[in-house]
Amino acid sequence: MTTVLKLGGSVITDKGEPETIDRPALASTAAALGRADPGRLVVVHGGGSFGHHHADAHGVSSTASTREAAAVTAIHDAMGRLNAAVVAALQEEGLSAVPVRPLSAAVKSDADPTTSSESGRSLGLATRPVRALLTEGFVPVLHGDVVATPGAGCTVASGDTLVAALADRLAADRVGLCTTVPGVLDADGAVIEEIDGREAVADVLGDATGTDVTGGMAAKVETLLGIDSPASIFGPDALSRFLETGTAGTVVR
Amino acid sequence: MTTVLKLGGSVITDKGEPETIDRPALASTAAALGRADPGRLVVVHGGGSFGHHHADAHGVSSTASTREAAAVTAIHDAMGRLNAAVVAALQEEGLSAVPVRPLSAAVKSDADPTTSSESGRSLGLATRPVRALLTEGFVPVLHGDVVATPGAGCTVASGDTLVAALADRLAADRVGLCTTVPGVLDADGAVIEEIDGREAVADVLGDATGTDVTGGMAAKVETLLGIDSPASIFGPDALSRFLETGTAGTVVR
Repeated sequence: MTTVLKLGGSVITDKGEPETIDRPALASTAAALGRADPGRLVVVHGGGSFGHHHADAHGVSSTASTREAAAVTAIHDAMGRLNAAVVAALQEEGLSAVPVRPLSAAVKSDADPTTSSESGRSLGLATRPVRALLTEGFVPVLHGDVVATPGAGCTVASGDTLVAALADRLAADRVGLCTTVPGVLDADGAVIEEIDGREAVADVLGDATGTDVTGGMAAKVETLLGIDSPASIFGPDALSRFLETGTAGTVVR
Repeated sequence: MTTVLKLGGSVITDKGEPETIDRPALASTAAALGRADPGRLVVVHGGGSFGHHHADAHGVSSTASTREAAAVTAIHDAMGRLNAAVVAALQEEGLSAVPVRPLSAAVKSDADPTTSSESGRSLGLATRPVRALLTEGFVPVLHGDVVATPGAGCTVASGDTLVAALADRLAADRVGLCTTVPGVLDADGAVIEEIDGREAVADVLGDATGTDVTGGMAAKVETLLGIDSPASIFGPDALSRFLETGTAGTVVR
């Protein structure tokens, strides 16, 4: 049983304050993971007030690139500080969490700004180290990061893109995106239980555009539709249920 | 022109004091690199008083493994602090240095303690990100690190092993190991100009065993004999000459 779990940057950080971890939220997330027996687990976290802050300051996004090494390290190092906090929180709950840094392991093949959404397939991610760490009983913890993008320098590979690439290449049994909302909401604010196919997205979400540098909910659903494993989008309160049952919130097939 | 340059841990740190950078040595090394025009450059640094200290504390070496996530992160994070200092020093001298962390990108296939020396071929290193960073004008900076080792947990992949793997897979034109000594010394303390083949090593170095967790000079020469590119072992004073001419100190073919 292989689970790929994304912890949204907004879930574990205070997105209003630069480089501020939401300690109670991170601790309760880690505790939920510590209580579960998730088998092989890969965690991916977003940038929250760490990555986005620096990415904005340097004008870097999934489509806007940089060739400045100082910009790359500013973003990457900030993500490293958040990553270290996540790894430490998981270790405190008994999980054998270790960091895996996408800048060291990934290449993005496509930074074409006319491509509206990122897909996991645009990301060349070396999964052999992740597989080996899983086999040896570790919990690899990845994050959205700047990665080399041939012809463009470096661009952002979002946490969602990493989730899609990992889900595909590890043939994950379960994919979960823990976000600040309880799922994809319809016009009345109710959680949509299931989204099946692109037409459903268009019906429900219209042409919603992103609210942060790596895309909002529509882009999230679009990315999840590209992978084979069923994926759940849910809020922090439903994390334990997802770990127990494999689905929670909105299920995207 | 692709150069793989190893900066010995003892060259850039004070090996007697835990986690102490030798700031003047690091600055002059970075300045020499800043003055040169080395083309495509990959830098690898050793552990010095960062990695070895924590590796010893946790009983981890290239052959002694760990399954403790806390041991892995203690060693890896210490190496990350040294790596960040090296990257910053190189950036200050105008080089587009960015970090590449082996734990994220490598798997060691063999932790067999009966194998006396590590070869670059025992290391599965994802070189696509390194290649892409080079093509985009960056200077990837790697380091000796703990890496997943199937069947054993994690073991140390030494800087020298990484140099050998990179030299092979990047078909490096020039390989340099900047150490605290001016080259491989003969019985009279004179620098041996050239070492060609294993017999020469046995003649000169006998069965010398390692003086640190990743091996001493004999293991270094042994590792360099396994790669196709000619490799130089030289002291810090000869770094500029190596960068200008491609050889310095002892040349291992």
